[in-house]
Amino acid sequence: MPRDPLITLLTDYGTQDIYAGVLHGVILGIAPQARIVDLTHAVPPQAVGQAGLLLAAAAPYFPAGTVHVAVVDPGVGSNRRILCASASGALFLAPDNGLLEEVLAADPAARVWSVEDQRLFLPKVSATFHGRDIFAPVAARLATGLDPAKVGPPVKDPVRSPVPAPRLERGVVRGQVAHVDRFGNVVTTIKPGALPSGIAWVRTRGTTITGPPCLTYSDRPSGALLALAGSSGRLEVSVNTGDAAAKLGSRVGDTVEVGLLERSDG
Amino acid sequence: MPRDPLITLLTDYGTQDIYAGVLHGVILGIAPQARIVDLTHAVPPQAVGQAGLLLAAAAPYFPAGTVHVAVVDPGVGSNRRILCASASGALFLAPDNGLLEEVLAADPAARVWSVEDQRLFLPKVSATFHGRDIFAPVAARLATGLDPAKVGPPVKDPVRSPVPAPRLERGVVRGQVAHVDRFGNVVTTIKPGALPSGIAWVRTRGTTITGPPCLTYSDRPSGALLALAGSSGRLEVSVNTGDAAAKLGSRVGDTVEVGLLERSDG
Amino acid sequence: MPRDPLITLLTDYGTQDIYAGVLHGVILGIAPQARIVDLTHAVPPQAVGQAGLLLAAAAPYFPAGTVHVAVVDPGVGSNRRILCASASGALFLAPDNGLLEEVLAADPAARVWSVEDQRLFLPKVSATFHGRDIFAPVAARLATGLDPAKVGPPVKDPVRSPVPAPRLERGVVRGQVAHVDRFGNVVTTIKPGALPSGIAWVRTRGTTITGPPCLTYSDRPSGALLALAGSSGRLEVSVNTGDAAAKLGSRVGDTVEVGLLERSDG
Repeated sequence: MPRDPLITLLTDYGTQDIYAGVLHGVILGIAPQARIVDLTHAVPPQAVGQAGLLLAAAAPYFPAGTVHVAVVDPGVGSNRRILCASASGALFLAPDNGLLEEVLAADPAARVWSVEDQRLFLPKVSATFHGRDIFAPVAARLATGLDPAKVGPPVKDPVRSPVPAPRLERGVVRGQVAHVDRFGNVVTTIKPGALPSGIAWVRTRGTTITGPPCLTYSDRPSGALLALAGSSGRLEVSVNTGDAAAKLGSRVGDTVEVGLLERSDG
Repeated sequence: MPRDPLITLLTDYGTQDIYAGVLHGVILGIAPQARIVDLTHAVPPQAVGQAGLLLAAAAPYFPAGTVHVAVVDPGVGSNRRILCASASGALFLAPDNGLLEEVLAADPAARVWSVEDQRLFLPKVSATFHGRDIFAPVAARLATGLDPAKVGPPVKDPVRSPVPAPRLERGVVRGQVAHVDRFGNVVTTIKPGALPSGIAWVRTRGTTITGPPCLTYSDRPSGALLALAGSSGRLEVSVNTGDAAAKLGSRVGDTVEVGLLERSDG
Repeated sequence: MPRDPLITLLTDYGTQDIYAGVLHGVILGIAPQARIVDLTHAVPPQAVGQAGLLLAAAAPYFPAGTVHVAVVDPGVGSNRRILCASASGALFLAPDNGLLEEVLAADPAARVWSVEDQRLFLPKVSATFHGRDIFAPVAARLATGLDPAKVGPPVKDPVRSPVPAPRLERGVVRGQVAHVDRFGNVVTTIKPGALPSGIAWVRTRGTTITGPPCLTYSDRPSGALLALAGSSGRLEVSVNTGDAAAKLGSRVGDTVEVGLLERSDG
């Protein structure tokens, strides 16, 4: 049986309004067979960095050909560009504000275009709701076969992410808190798998967790603080059956430091 | 490819319970091919006026033939009627409490019936959960082709909305705050497109914004208060990359006044 | 037209993260035609008892053959089992922590297996996100026809629920608050339909409601406290157009006592 086109939505629209629902309506009006998955609409308003992190963590778990729409767009109505990217077998639509940086970094062969062909938009484009008037109809057309190269001219200089990459200096990696999840897990910008050696300690908010990261929460007693490589490959600070962010007072943007083990090259 | 039947849900059920999910189950039991879109389940409990506003703003963005179900129903279990309306190419189900007023006003040819044929309901109808026992099964049957005139007798006197329409007196329009959205945008009952002339100033919570409405948020500096015609055609008070409702202390029901420009005819 | 496979999700993942959305992606990668219903993702973190209550209340309203996935899993990554159950015409996946107790109790012919065949999982199973790596792919395979007996060996001793069953002693039934819903309705573990006689009074948080339960909220004046048999057959304490939990200070786990009427046999 042929696969129905699949579209995901990730926004800061919240769910107390009908903004996200209206995107479904516009998409289904153009692509009646589309399956639409709400990744989340609870990105904090205008938190471009968190949106980029969440999108990059989710996209690998969707089938090839999925169209991912990410609208966290403080510049709506200004002359910022809207990007369409083809990367890692999927298509992405997002404002040109750095949101796609991690998705693009993950695929050296990624291609990017500026969404400019107004024939793909709703007939009347408002100045304040491009999710409805541009993103949704373009996503629906991409999901039903539109060649992404047809949306507009290629882009070589996408805006960079507002979140700095981790830096390694004298055996210490300095990164940031990128996201605090529902359980109070403190998700960082640091990827243990990309470090040159193992982790000796993790420090944030004045608290140091010594020893290598755990494999799972229950490696420590209930209530104990621990570090681990989370399910999306990022270093996380957690509390077994507890809330690490509440315990530490963690917030997005906090500094996180990681001490590396000296390598014994042999 | 034929379009699957499309049903939207708008309720005050919240999403921490399984009430909304159960509506999906009942619908898919009767109409397995239905696509169901959750417009929102976060209408404040029993806020009929806000529900009506949100429904009227969302419905035009759905394909013809969509069945919109709106359940904000403080009178559940009492003898209030349940209405089925055919308006603007769509079908609507809602309690007879004024929720549909704006939808009906938008189409002079709208027709309304009272949902009374119990053969369309679940076999056992509870006194407290008509969303599950009446609205969902009737919506599923309408979505799969039931003639709306078959649900019960015509209705000529639907209950009026609890939200007063804006009034114009001596060049000043007095309306209300109808909704505060996720971003703190203060959505009013006033529609600039329906006013007899342009807007000179907007006043609410003791603050006056002078000059005509902006086209978009970034027409003002970051943090500045502004008025604009929002994406659903209503006058909104906003802050560029900020939260106007928090800044002003706005609440649903607050008075909003608009001073009109004198028309220079000729 | 053949029915698409139907899968429901009930978790404590929240909706501010992409965890729930990722389950959709994994499922649709394996079962492209599946319809997925989010029952709720707002179970309080690790609240196994509430999850079991909500699942048992929702499942009867879904068509036969539905696969219900419930992941509230404080033991993720430990050696707790994952259960697959066939009960009341549906399939269920949940950690072996008591979550399924009520579902299993409702069908004396229920059968249970331990999910152990790793060929059904994602190729790489993390220690912290079994919803994505085990529950979702197994659910997708069950929804597309996998025989549940193929997931692993039968289980005869599922872990018991952490929520005690109500006890009857000298004409008084002692139960608990099992859930507080969006409207502040206080849902208890007591099922009026299972009591040996009628209800004379209900007491919780020091407040006694005398007389038999109401049929619906509007049987009492606006603002008045009342007891009724809720839409899922459980005794609830409510306030007509108000919030009983806020009025009483109710919390999950509070004691609820019910005085029974003396039966006049003959």
